[in-house]
Amino acid sequence: MNIISECGCFGGRQITFEHDSAATGTPMRVAVFLPPAAATLAPGERLPGLVFLSGLTCTEDNVTIKSGVQRYAAEAGLVFIAPDTSPRGEGVADDERYDLGQGAGFYVDATQAPWAPHFQMETYITRDLIAVVRENLPVDTNRLGVSGHSMGGHGALTLALRHPGLFKSLSAFAPIAAPMQVDWGQTCFGAYLGDDQSRWAEHDASVLYRSQTFPGPVLVDQGEDDPWQESGLRTEALEQAFAGSGQQGEIRRHAGYDHSYFFVGSFFDDHIRHHARELARL
Amino acid sequence: MNIISECGCFGGRQITFEHDSAATGTPMRVAVFLPPAAATLAPGERLPGLVFLSGLTCTEDNVTIKSGVQRYAAEAGLVFIAPDTSPRGEGVADDERYDLGQGAGFYVDATQAPWAPHFQMETYITRDLIAVVRENLPVDTNRLGVSGHSMGGHGALTLALRHPGLFKSLSAFAPIAAPMQVDWGQTCFGAYLGDDQSRWAEHDASVLYRSQTFPGPVLVDQGEDDPWQESGLRTEALEQAFAGSGQQGEIRRHAGYDHSYFFVGSFFDDHIRHHARELARL
Repeated sequence: MNIISECGCFGGRQITFEHDSAATGTPMRVAVFLPPAAATLAPGERLPGLVFLSGLTCTEDNVTIKSGVQRYAAEAGLVFIAPDTSPRGEGVADDERYDLGQGAGFYVDATQAPWAPHFQMETYITRDLIAVVRENLPVDTNRLGVSGHSMGGHGALTLALRHPGLFKSLSAFAPIAAPMQVDWGQTCFGAYLGDDQSRWAEHDASVLYRSQTFPGPVLVDQGEDDPWQESGLRTEALEQAFAGSGQQGEIRRHAGYDHSYFFVGSFFDDHIRHHARELARL
Repeated sequence: MNIISECGCFGGRQITFEHDSAATGTPMRVAVFLPPAAATLAPGERLPGLVFLSGLTCTEDNVTIKSGVQRYAAEAGLVFIAPDTSPRGEGVADDERYDLGQGAGFYVDATQAPWAPHFQMETYITRDLIAVVRENLPVDTNRLGVSGHSMGGHGALTLALRHPGLFKSLSAFAPIAAPMQVDWGQTCFGAYLGDDQSRWAEHDASVLYRSQTFPGPVLVDQGEDDPWQESGLRTEALEQAFAGSGQQGEIRRHAGYDHSYFFVGSFFDDHIRHHARELARL
């Protein structure tokens, strides 16, 4: 774990580090906020953590710089962990589209050329990221939650179901809820997973939650002025899936809010409290 | 007042607008946060406001996107007003240095070529900005505070003294406290104001506060890990000036904090409370 930058923030420390991932075969960057409580732990004591998956075009920086989440994580005593959204670098495949390739890993393990060698984001998040956190930070990885925004909301909802028990609390901001129904998802799933749509369905929240549930309440927020709501997100498909399986939780719609970090920041306090409450039950 | 963008934020509205300034002879951009209280005002009722002056290289966007200030302004019922840091555009003079020209107006009225035609930021802030706010927003311009970061901290400290009664409350984050003593200030003051250093002294907080005081407590925050502290800011010169004149207020030093918006965001709650308290006394 190679520290790139570190500074004070809300009484804690904001740190960006880089580490080698066997899954992606590249160095990966991660931004971590250590709350003030991390400075006064007893020997062996660890804090709960929240993995936050970001959206298309983002790096580890966007949520770290734009959301103001550190204040809430400081109050809750939660370690906030924001990984990058894809492998990057000169030897890594890319595309001119902003919504395919670098910055658009979609939290799946690619099986198709030219993506398969490095685009292994599901294994990266669920194995390598958690390992580097456990080994280098005062985080109890048995008390980890997951959240995300847009493409990262898709990642949070699907990884939480696909890896039972790994994440103990779950929320999402404006998730790409039905990737198979929208251009973003069709493009990336086709490129990364191939033509067989039965493989796509394994990564589509609106399909998975029809027949499966997360063992705890799921908090989802969606802005009513979000320009991607119909063309890219399909919140109503997630509502139908939750209703079908009886998933516990709440999908809240907010008049006047769009897809930006002004929306995410406005409701982050609620999400951090949700995760802190659920993780405190363990 | 031409609205560029608008969205929901912490129950209020985040708005960016453009307006023509007679002082700069250019369109100027301003970001404004209207707290939730702005939506339920009685006829003729207006809210207090805070003008925030940003630092070198910034536009109206930086503090708006990176500081998380909206939460505190929402709680306090304060309108938060963030203007750009200089005139801009193809017909406006500029320089290859990041700390001279566009993005570096230094809140003075330039008297020298090629800057004088557009670089009239003191008159822009103290006359044109306040006029457009009064005419278009529910702000009581008799209850205005001023704050700023770095170059904008210099702007807040000097404009508050140079225009008595205009701003009723004052604070600064890591201000360029003694511009005559550091490279940034010498470069810009020389370019904008000419070689006569007696003109520079009229815009140097560490000179002005030796013999004058602001009629209220001044809150200043400074990070101890700020890499510019010695080479570009000179906090101790402001401390000496405050001590010399008996200026009321507090210059707080914070171990572990740098010059970034992680520092600014960490202490914005205190600044907003300071301004709200002082403006409520009027």
